[in-house]
Amino acid sequence: MGDVNRIILDKAVSDVELIPTLAHHLIDSGGKRLRPMLTIATAKLCGYRGTGHVHLAAAVEFMHTATLLHDDVVDDSDLRRGKQSARLIWGNQASVLVGDFLLGQAFRMMVDVGSLAALRILSNAAAVIAEGEVMQLAAAKDTATTEQDYLAIIAAKTAALFSAATEVGAAIADRPAEEQAALRSYGLNLGMVFQLVDDALDYAGESASLGKSTGDDFREGKITLPVILSVSRGSTEERAFWHRTLGEGRIEDGDLELALGIMQRHDAIAATLDRARHYGTLASDALAVLPPGQALRALTEVVGFCISRAK
Amino acid sequence: MGDVNRIILDKAVSDVELIPTLAHHLIDSGGKRLRPMLTIATAKLCGYRGTGHVHLAAAVEFMHTATLLHDDVVDDSDLRRGKQSARLIWGNQASVLVGDFLLGQAFRMMVDVGSLAALRILSNAAAVIAEGEVMQLAAAKDTATTEQDYLAIIAAKTAALFSAATEVGAAIADRPAEEQAALRSYGLNLGMVFQLVDDALDYAGESASLGKSTGDDFREGKITLPVILSVSRGSTEERAFWHRTLGEGRIEDGDLELALGIMQRHDAIAATLDRARHYGTLASDALAVLPPGQALRALTEVVGFCISRAK
Repeated sequence: MGDVNRIILDKAVSDVELIPTLAHHLIDSGGKRLRPMLTIATAKLCGYRGTGHVHLAAAVEFMHTATLLHDDVVDDSDLRRGKQSARLIWGNQASVLVGDFLLGQAFRMMVDVGSLAALRILSNAAAVIAEGEVMQLAAAKDTATTEQDYLAIIAAKTAALFSAATEVGAAIADRPAEEQAALRSYGLNLGMVFQLVDDALDYAGESASLGKSTGDDFREGKITLPVILSVSRGSTEERAFWHRTLGEGRIEDGDLELALGIMQRHDAIAATLDRARHYGTLASDALAVLPPGQALRALTEVVGFCISRAK
Repeated sequence: MGDVNRIILDKAVSDVELIPTLAHHLIDSGGKRLRPMLTIATAKLCGYRGTGHVHLAAAVEFMHTATLLHDDVVDDSDLRRGKQSARLIWGNQASVLVGDFLLGQAFRMMVDVGSLAALRILSNAAAVIAEGEVMQLAAAKDTATTEQDYLAIIAAKTAALFSAATEVGAAIADRPAEEQAALRSYGLNLGMVFQLVDDALDYAGESASLGKSTGDDFREGKITLPVILSVSRGSTEERAFWHRTLGEGRIEDGDLELALGIMQRHDAIAATLDRARHYGTLASDALAVLPPGQALRALTEVVGFCISRAK
């Protein structure tokens, strides 16, 4: 991962001063580097011996960083990883354009690796992630969003990049289709775990360890699974509450506490974490066809790590 | 070009309804398809016999469309090709995300063609275009921007895509480095012509044929070459005028007429078009090493066409 970090810093360089300044704000902000770590681990698991996986891992992190920059613009977010968001400091315009630059750099790095298979997987992910974001935008403020709709949204906007990050590890190692499919499935399910735990933590977590405050999703009017379950399990009166607060954006003092109370009444956080554990099981089971050893154990532990964030 | 248009329509498809709706708004709005046409023409000139050039041409147009969507967000533009801009109808958020989708689709299409050389050229262009846009953002409202600064900005934000569009024609045809370099240079210089003529027309053109109104750049506070030349050739009083209107954005009734008067006094429009013709000569001369014939004549005529827009 030291090599990955070095490449990330190398490739965030540009003669246009604002680009490295803004990019470093996010890159240095203590992200977990979970996605590139997955690319490194899966490539190792697959016995890959070159250096391409390090560059692909850095490209994956650039894609992720570009997405975060655009996300914060779309969501009007003021906070990211516990710091002021780039868009708050440098504006929406710079965030959009530096995001575009990082995506361009990501593709340059993939091209340098020279694997068309990896390029196919990652360019596919880029389009699918954007589709997921548009789906989420279209469902924004819609408290009638179903669990099924929501799962499709997060499969695209979050899990697709996890899936691509793990699949490229097998792809550059030229492993059989069966192993590539297994790692694709592992990543997809792990991404679902990650997002669902994130959704739960937003209502149940402690703000310091998350780099965001409890209730951010609520204040931003985001429809996430704890809300969807509370709506579907709730009374007419409770549905009216969700409609007023998240649908119409009329949030009053004390509403977050009310929301937490309703969620508790319907076990919505616990049910969200149950769903996450379900995907975690799928992720672990997907690994069964892969060669045992240290790398495989590490991948299995990642599932546990993602779930244990919720404790 | 019929095939290119068919692929453009095919690939603007998504199950997420907002994506084709928004994309078609721009795709169907009568753009000139100049950039994909250049890819087709250069591939033909280079004797390419496959179908990859058609897909690369469509990818080039998608990259362009993505840029336009993000540009309109960055510039707060209300009009594009004579229609309401997508961001005005569907919002900045949707424009950012659908732009991201189109860029992802563009890379998918390039990967399907399978030419790493073409992928290298176009991914490079994607990063350079974004760099140019950030440079322009950093220079916004700065009436002290030099001609040299400005030429660097438009070389990146506009000419890089023209250059990539023409270079990939040679790259997929596996032509010698010399011809590829010639077409890269042709495209780069043609792009400079295109942008400088655009800048001149914004102050001198007729709004109907342009799909934008005379003075749009002025109202949006854009620093373009006619302004830069007027500033550098102008009196202290005139510089104060540019600083107030474009630097501070305090535009009053009658200011556009004043601006046009100052430009006329200093021959700023004519000088901008002289610069454009200079690049046009470079573009035409770059073609000298290429095989003569119909395709070559067409490329030469494009230079004349771009310049004659100014009449």
